Amino acid sequence: MKDLRIKDILAKIDKFDGKKIELKAWVVSNRGNLKVSFVTLNDGSTTDSLQCVLKASLLGETSLTQANELHLGSAVRVVGELKHTPDAPQPAELVVSEFAVLSLASGDYPIQKQQINLETLRELPHVRHRTNLLRAVFLIRSTLAYEVHKYFIDNGFIYFNAPIITSNDGEGAGETFSVNDANAEKPFFGANNATLGVTGQLHAESYALGFKKVYTFAPTFRAEHSNTKKHAAEFWMIEPEVAFYNLHDVIHLADDLLKTAIKKTIEKHPHEFNFLLEHVDANLLDRLSAFCQQKLNVIDYRDAIAELAKVKSRFEDQNIHFGLDLATEHERYLAEELFKGPVAVINFPKAFKAFYMHQNDDDTTVAAFDLLVPGIGELIGGSQREVRIDKLEARIKEVGISQADLQWYLDLRKFGNAGSAGFGVGFERLVMYVTGVDNIRDVIPYPRTSGNIKM
Amino acid sequence: MKDLRIKDILAKIDKFDGKKIELKAWVVSNRGNLKVSFVTLNDGSTTDSLQCVLKASLLGETSLTQANELHLGSAVRVVGELKHTPDAPQPAELVVSEFAVLSLASGDYPIQKQQINLETLRELPHVRHRTNLLRAVFLIRSTLAYEVHKYFIDNGFIYFNAPIITSNDGEGAGETFSVNDANAEKPFFGANNATLGVTGQLHAESYALGFKKVYTFAPTFRAEHSNTKKHAAEFWMIEPEVAFYNLHDVIHLADDLLKTAIKKTIEKHPHEFNFLLEHVDANLLDRLSAFCQQKLNVIDYRDAIAELAKVKSRFEDQNIHFGLDLATEHERYLAEELFKGPVAVINFPKAFKAFYMHQNDDDTTVAAFDLLVPGIGELIGGSQREVRIDKLEARIKEVGISQADLQWYLDLRKFGNAGSAGFGVGFERLVMYVTGVDNIRDVIPYPRTSGNIKM
Repeated sequence: MKDLRIKDILAKIDKFDGKKIELKAWVVSNRGNLKVSFVTLNDGSTTDSLQCVLKASLLGETSLTQANELHLGSAVRVVGELKHTPDAPQPAELVVSEFAVLSLASGDYPIQKQQINLETLRELPHVRHRTNLLRAVFLIRSTLAYEVHKYFIDNGFIYFNAPIITSNDGEGAGETFSVNDANAEKPFFGANNATLGVTGQLHAESYALGFKKVYTFAPTFRAEHSNTKKHAAEFWMIEPEVAFYNLHDVIHLADDLLKTAIKKTIEKHPHEFNFLLEHVDANLLDRLSAFCQQKLNVIDYRDAIAELAKVKSRFEDQNIHFGLDLATEHERYLAEELFKGPVAVINFPKAFKAFYMHQNDDDTTVAAFDLLVPGIGELIGGSQREVRIDKLEARIKEVGISQADLQWYLDLRKFGNAGSAGFGVGFERLVMYVTGVDNIRDVIPYPRTSGNIKM
Repeated sequence: MKDLRIKDILAKIDKFDGKKIELKAWVVSNRGNLKVSFVTLNDGSTTDSLQCVLKASLLGETSLTQANELHLGSAVRVVGELKHTPDAPQPAELVVSEFAVLSLASGDYPIQKQQINLETLRELPHVRHRTNLLRAVFLIRSTLAYEVHKYFIDNGFIYFNAPIITSNDGEGAGETFSVNDANAEKPFFGANNATLGVTGQLHAESYALGFKKVYTFAPTFRAEHSNTKKHAAEFWMIEPEVAFYNLHDVIHLADDLLKTAIKKTIEKHPHEFNFLLEHVDANLLDRLSAFCQQKLNVIDYRDAIAELAKVKSRFEDQNIHFGLDLATEHERYLAEELFKGPVAVINFPKAFKAFYMHQNDDDTTVAAFDLLVPGIGELIGGSQREVRIDKLEARIKEVGISQADLQWYLDLRKFGNAGSAGFGVGFERLVMYVTGVDNIRDVIPYPRTSGNIKM
């Protein structure tokens, strides 16, 4: 009987109908009188809860008084017989024969029956996952993470752990955190400047050279001061890197990864998606299904600029020209209105892209792509990598990064490197896309943003 | 034909016998003359390589000259017919009909045929995985990580991401790294003291309260100055936390997790374990199989001390008494000689254990366990958590931690907390135990230790 979950029971009510069941779980509602009491329990396995019926005839009046007076959030143990109730509002109920309070919640437990807004809940990261909305989000987050791992392992990738503390600024963007021994004067790692990695890509490239298909899935950090709904200082990234792949191979990989992981996640969470449809976005499943069924849209950056120019009056930044680094408003127009679904924009001007991207023959653009999705904008950024040492050295010089720090990376080009390609998925943005939740602070258990390090 | 791996071919030679196959891979050896050339390829899917036979009669002399002169590490594309060769030293070979060099390695590619010692390889973290030993280690590391995720998901856990940057020092041990914006004067997170987390446990406890069964699998950091074979400044930890579990439940969980993950990993890596048996430790598989088949040994700390006292003359630290914090030499004696296998030591004196552990009725010990394994010593540390606020407050005061920082953690005890238990597995130590490799620097792609941040 051990470790049976409410999710398992609700998935197979027929199988459990008439069976004796033991549960340890938390009270989410209770009402009743001295004859009969209804206590609804949740064990975190699903947003749905299980209604327990307590009868004085079976348990005595003292137990019923206790049950009726319990504060929400209290932990109880129940043993009872499951009854299929096809005509009642809930599909099953448990007729309780043993009832014990394991731990009382105090009256100031913050999660009560009335709805609490998300801003208030952000002040309570240690309990907000005990609301249905956050429960749905974090159950889906967990499954999405697993389906991402499963996709890669099923497809012959090896999971690679890039170092988190590094002396390279992989993006060259400079928004890094420095790391020091909190209790010592001299640098822990010696003379080098230690920072928290902004990407595992450069190191992943070294492992793709030899293992062919590798991926990372790890926290990354940006000392990001912009206070938006989609930026956090600490977030998880998924970064595959595949030797012998070019830009188009890797766009296909991104598309297949997303479709597979999303499809399997939806299958595993009927209760949670029902909840999200009702409380967050009624079109959520239609949008996700459409994406999973359709061929991915691909547009050249030049063509995207032409499309944006046609409707430039609608944008805050109306200076639409070749060389524009697309802002969220432009990205969302492309995904939400022009293509009405995810779209990969390819071949960006090299001027605002990282130094390691393959330089196209036009000497102006690089073999990069951004995958834009409705509601969010950029979900994935990737590229084919530059393997020609002369081109890479020239670009490193141009953007003003120290070549000495990257000599090992340049050396990889001398050791049988026939090219590789990869991308980074912002995992939290993926969770936002899949759940319809529009603020990154609500899909990270304990979010870290500029000025905020609660608990 | 795309993405076929050498591992897949070697696993089903019968199926591929006589079939046309395309491969992109790297040269690990080549020899031949103008009539016939043997080029062995590895694609990173396994330690075993595939021998290709190039015949001048099929490809022309120019191709053979090129093949014979290739530097090791070069990337090639071959198409050919697979032939089962049961009487040859290798089980199959590819008779090549198309041969193309995709990228030449230069002559200074460091991985040549002669063996290189591990110390030298540590200077080359960007290429050392292209030796058979490190290839085996990192393939097994990847599979172990996946099997750990799979075990938890299959058993109804949710994957939880604790914050990496935190203002709590979870262990109270003080060996923390501080985090600052590298390019700004004022603290990025406001007034708080931001450090890299040493554990996800405190936060995981909050999620176990509501989700019941959760686990983390994430990097953790210690500003660890001891320069030993088993300490690193950055390492990955697996930390499950289960509501309603006590000490014995969680020891059973640790045992079942290890046995399941190890068994499945061995099944998936016949070539790699053969290699390790031959080159690292001939007893490796016997030792792992014995552990997987036997009931886990459990010994009370008091009894362990009595056992150690019997043989104290063999230890450097001979002051064997109740209150001794076991050193590696003591741990290894228990695991390697007394029990000849993994052993869980339970009920340690509270004096040297963390503040959050359940205080036993003797008022002297805590409901903690350390799982000790041969060759390594401590692989896992865990405990049942203290839920009685008064006991917890007294202990926080005793060890001198700021209660204000931990108020949210104390508050969890008021919200239906019937107790939980959990543990931390040092993932790299698990990889060491499973591969037989005895230095943590050789199981981390880019190890970070005191004074060392190479690449």
